[in-house]
Amino acid sequence: MTRRTPSGAAVLQPSVTSAITEAVLDEWAEQGYGRLSMEAVAKRAGVGKSALYRRWPSKQEMAMSVISEFLVASAWAPDTGSLRGDLRALLDQLLEWMTHPRISRILPDLIAEAARNPELARVHQAMIGAPRRERARPVFERAIERGELPSGTDVELALDLVAAPVYWRLTVRGVEAGAGYLDSLTGMLLAALHAR
Amino acid sequence: MTRRTPSGAAVLQPSVTSAITEAVLDEWAEQGYGRLSMEAVAKRAGVGKSALYRRWPSKQEMAMSVISEFLVASAWAPDTGSLRGDLRALLDQLLEWMTHPRISRILPDLIAEAARNPELARVHQAMIGAPRRERARPVFERAIERGELPSGTDVELALDLVAAPVYWRLTVRGVEAGAGYLDSLTGMLLAALHAR
Repeated sequence: MTRRTPSGAAVLQPSVTSAITEAVLDEWAEQGYGRLSMEAVAKRAGVGKSALYRRWPSKQEMAMSVISEFLVASAWAPDTGSLRGDLRALLDQLLEWMTHPRISRILPDLIAEAARNPELARVHQAMIGAPRRERARPVFERAIERGELPSGTDVELALDLVAAPVYWRLTVRGVEAGAGYLDSLTGMLLAALHAR
Repeated sequence: MTRRTPSGAAVLQPSVTSAITEAVLDEWAEQGYGRLSMEAVAKRAGVGKSALYRRWPSKQEMAMSVISEFLVASAWAPDTGSLRGDLRALLDQLLEWMTHPRISRILPDLIAEAARNPELARVHQAMIGAPRRERARPVFERAIERGELPSGTDVELALDLVAAPVYWRLTVRGVEAGAGYLDSLTGMLLAALHAR
């Protein structure tokens, strides 16, 4: 997934890489991964196909490289000083992420494609799922250190419980999630985790 | 979404409808909705395209008719006598549903397509999401009647909390969910809902 190092060739221009990245995200959001083509991306970016192949050897490598940077960039662990505050901030962050015009189309499409393509599934988990999860983990570790959560807390299950309902509601059910919903969900999560 | 009533034409043969239904599900699972074509379905079912058009006016009507029957058929509300038993049975039912070889590919694909196609999203919610949800609702209503749950329980949020983690874990994260996971999740759900 690393970009090819040009050897004796022209240096890769960041402005071209940026135009291609934008074109990949737009094409993917509009067409889905299955209909995403190197031709359409090159045309949209206003570059030749060779500019794409100088950077990535295939559509899959191009797509995963662009999307993993894009989908992981916005993840961070809030540190408000309380578990309630951190959970609410995590939920706000997830809501913003999942309602982003491009992400709300690309993420479910990536998941659908991964169900048909084991290699894509592996890359998706390693380059997007796992890094995002690791960035949220300190919220629970700090709550355990502060004594807000029992020491034996199942952090893996807790991480699932935070992200899952927001995704389910927004993406699977297609229903909005306002501040009131996130407040109720925060309360249920604190109860579920036996927070003190 | 209702099948056309043949007027003066040959009666629709159930065996042909059944072959077409199987072909739609197989093609959708393998190719995704975007690449699903009337031609491929007809070929796979061993019938002419006219047999499809006698039943449904378009690919979208065919697909939604077949999938809504298929995805709603297996939903029912367990009635074990306790909220814990009912929740665990619901989770078992969801796990079986979401790991079904066809459903595990078709459901995320339908959700991805719905994010790009508002009409598909509307039909998906009305014909699949809402009926499945209504069938699970009695679990919580009976628990409130029995005094196991507070009378002010947010049943909408409770319904989200049951299905969401299983979908997130299996489909988004691509991780298995065994009996131990469902047991832990049941315990967390009971705590989240302040079950007595």
